[in-house]
Amino acid sequence: MKVLLNRDSDIPFYMQIAGQIKRQIISGEIIPGFRLPPERKLADSLGINRTTVLNAYRELKAEGLVGSRVGQGTVVLSPLRDEAAGMENRVPEPPWNQIFSKYAHGINSFIVKDLLTLANRKDVISFATGIAAPDSGPIQALAGIEHDIVLQKNYRGLLHSPTEGFSTLREAICALMQPRGVYCHHDEVMLLSGSQQGIDLTSRIMLEPGDIALVEEPSFFPAIQALKAAGVRVVGVPMDKRGMRVDMLEPILHRYRPKLIYTIPNFHNPTGSEMSLERRKQLLELAYKHRVLILEDDAYAELCYDGQPLPTLKSMDSEGYVIYLSTFSKIIYSGLRLGWMVAHKKAIKKFAAAKQIMDLHSSSLSQWIVERFILEGGLNVHIPVICNEYRVKRDAMYDALTQYAPSDAQWNRPRGGYYIWCRLPEKVAASRLLGKAAERKVVFVPGTAFYLAEQGDDYVRLNFTFAPLKDIGEGVKRLCEAMKDLKDSNDVSEEDEPVEISPIV
Amino acid sequence: MKVLLNRDSDIPFYMQIAGQIKRQIISGEIIPGFRLPPERKLADSLGINRTTVLNAYRELKAEGLVGSRVGQGTVVLSPLRDEAAGMENRVPEPPWNQIFSKYAHGINSFIVKDLLTLANRKDVISFATGIAAPDSGPIQALAGIEHDIVLQKNYRGLLHSPTEGFSTLREAICALMQPRGVYCHHDEVMLLSGSQQGIDLTSRIMLEPGDIALVEEPSFFPAIQALKAAGVRVVGVPMDKRGMRVDMLEPILHRYRPKLIYTIPNFHNPTGSEMSLERRKQLLELAYKHRVLILEDDAYAELCYDGQPLPTLKSMDSEGYVIYLSTFSKIIYSGLRLGWMVAHKKAIKKFAAAKQIMDLHSSSLSQWIVERFILEGGLNVHIPVICNEYRVKRDAMYDALTQYAPSDAQWNRPRGGYYIWCRLPEKVAASRLLGKAAERKVVFVPGTAFYLAEQGDDYVRLNFTFAPLKDIGEGVKRLCEAMKDLKDSNDVSEEDEPVEISPIV
Repeated sequence: MKVLLNRDSDIPFYMQIAGQIKRQIISGEIIPGFRLPPERKLADSLGINRTTVLNAYRELKAEGLVGSRVGQGTVVLSPLRDEAAGMENRVPEPPWNQIFSKYAHGINSFIVKDLLTLANRKDVISFATGIAAPDSGPIQALAGIEHDIVLQKNYRGLLHSPTEGFSTLREAICALMQPRGVYCHHDEVMLLSGSQQGIDLTSRIMLEPGDIALVEEPSFFPAIQALKAAGVRVVGVPMDKRGMRVDMLEPILHRYRPKLIYTIPNFHNPTGSEMSLERRKQLLELAYKHRVLILEDDAYAELCYDGQPLPTLKSMDSEGYVIYLSTFSKIIYSGLRLGWMVAHKKAIKKFAAAKQIMDLHSSSLSQWIVERFILEGGLNVHIPVICNEYRVKRDAMYDALTQYAPSDAQWNRPRGGYYIWCRLPEKVAASRLLGKAAERKVVFVPGTAFYLAEQGDDYVRLNFTFAPLKDIGEGVKRLCEAMKDLKDSNDVSEEDEPVEISPIV
Repeated sequence: MKVLLNRDSDIPFYMQIAGQIKRQIISGEIIPGFRLPPERKLADSLGINRTTVLNAYRELKAEGLVGSRVGQGTVVLSPLRDEAAGMENRVPEPPWNQIFSKYAHGINSFIVKDLLTLANRKDVISFATGIAAPDSGPIQALAGIEHDIVLQKNYRGLLHSPTEGFSTLREAICALMQPRGVYCHHDEVMLLSGSQQGIDLTSRIMLEPGDIALVEEPSFFPAIQALKAAGVRVVGVPMDKRGMRVDMLEPILHRYRPKLIYTIPNFHNPTGSEMSLERRKQLLELAYKHRVLILEDDAYAELCYDGQPLPTLKSMDSEGYVIYLSTFSKIIYSGLRLGWMVAHKKAIKKFAAAKQIMDLHSSSLSQWIVERFILEGGLNVHIPVICNEYRVKRDAMYDALTQYAPSDAQWNRPRGGYYIWCRLPEKVAASRLLGKAAERKVVFVPGTAFYLAEQGDDYVRLNFTFAPLKDIGEGVKRLCEAMKDLKDSNDVSEEDEPVEISPIV
């Protein structure tokens, strides 16, 4: 249905609307059963008064072209049928629950979205996000882009690019991989629309519904979601301070025969821990022995604040069992949606064929900006700057916890990454703390979000990169006060008033 | 494995390399079975002579740390085993063909990529792409962006955005939909990383493997690919000048009970045809009757060169059976990877949950640029400009065909879109014409690319938007000469030398 008002005409709006709709009904552009837009909706769209639309619909009704009934709105009648029959004939809404696929039934949106909304509220101190402070980003990456595109007529960033990404950017990534101990060709590299796409792609290309994947528990929840949505059975492997309990792995491998192990060996999300070198070695040996692929998620590779990071699994694997993911989201800007994958070239070929179906290729403009920033040396300058900044923030959070936290809380001092993982004092449940903390205008992600089953309510993930340095101490203080509130109140009303486990209030 | 050369050191490079690798073998960072990078690869990566790496590997071999065998490269040996056993122990490559999922086996990359490569060659006149000439794009969309982001500290385009897209952009799209006859709320709109993502999403959310989808035949091949890859059975419905043969649809619906009908009613790709109003009406009535969803791909909506486009199916459907896709690729820039979907809000909710798993959200920067361009009125100014340009180009191609084509060739004069669909003269096969035309430096897409089965070798798709206006006549002339060459030569060596059906030579 199409209504275009002529504001210069002498004909009143309601007659213009009725006339145009009538013409469309008679010509068949609008068919019997068509429900006219609700009056308010059409009025808002056209920027006119609701009564005007109401009057237009009344005209049409008087002519017998439309009918209305409570709960059904205004419906175009068939000229051949009487009004009652016309109304009965109204097309029912599609039966969505029957239409949705198994895949669709398996997914629910995760909470990142809500976290973003809350984290953007100015009066809240957020330890909940997985992003950096906006002004920590390398805004210099954009310097001169308008000149370089518009004046130099360089349309490269605006037109199609190869599915695998610009070959020059793939080569720049090869160079980026060398300090990570990986010597690859550009045909072993593919750009991704964020590293989340790499997890989804792997679940489509390497796994069948019913296949089993192992993950550290706790782990990055959108990865678990992507695997589960693909119908993959996800089995958790416990962790300790030295990362995944690889020493417990062999019986699990025998029992479940998984096809994939998903791991974040460096500065793990949510725990901040690092897998020990010994375990990395064992993990690879087990993967070879059992012919299991490893999906190594290395989002925080460059963000090591003390000394050198341990070798990546990819750097220890010469045969292609490791599919390596990383991203520019944590070191440049997340809104560019750009990550990458390093894998055996046979796998890259298949990944590219699948990616082509999914989105043809990643944003050329994002690629162009990132490539330019790397090649001009900007990234190399930027990384030490943010490492210094995040080191100070990590220390501020660690020190504030030392100062304010109840004596039976525990937390770590990660060498890198974005998160401190904090074990709550006894009798303080993360799900209950959330409400108390929100009252004090501080937010975090409760540990439960990172576990497969009902677990983790004794942990919280605290991000230290997003909040301004000056707010970190205050935020931790408020959080610890909320903990103490709960400890005190628990003695009185334990389990009395169940708090909803909705991460954001 | 990690090698960092100290170029200021007195220690020769080969000893630095051998020393570092040795340290990593002893520490276990490199495990037995690890294959050292090929000498040339490492030498290239480090920017040194191959002999230097060769000498380093010799050192390691002399110490018994590595061994080498033809076809296996240089492999780290186990200290506990003798050399021979160590070599036997080498880890085999992952068995990719066993590893790849059914989904992976179902896909092959399509030819867009190759077309891009060829179309970018300066000496070739390309009628093969599905894009506009780079300098037809609205470069003014970028004017001032650096100022608005960097100086105004507006980080919106650089940080995360909601999965569904910026709500302001979704509202701008609601306004864009009004001239297309659709009055929607922003909760019925979702941004996509290109409209291809909408096809992939629909196949995941609405279809199970084994479900049946109907498509016009011929049709847009990446859509067919996405459906097929998802295990969907794709059934073709014939077309004529008035679009899909909806008059033939009812028995097909009875026989196959499809769950989805994919259609491009406006300025169809590849044929340029429009579905008649009468058929649109019938199609909707059949969809309601058989409870089948319609996926309406309306990429060329704004590109009508004579008069007004026919009403979209979405504008004729008030109940949500139509899932509507469109894109900014054909009217702004394809490299931004931005399209959108309009659907029932219950469907949008599921689509968003699935999209979140796939790529979290579309590029914020692309969204920011497009939103700004629309809201500042730039898009409204730009569209008449390109419509005028493409009308002239279409006429140039049409007229050149009239002037040069053999008398038994046939072609249309589409009212809009990007393509002329040309039936070749008798005895001229598109697959053979491709080589002949390439010799004369002109390319196109043979009709076979758009059909499900072996069909369409008597058609070619000719894009008229990419080539500069001054080249269109010359390109058509060359193409028609190639047709005549083939007509002449066919009498002599019919079927003699089978030409490979590889669209790009």
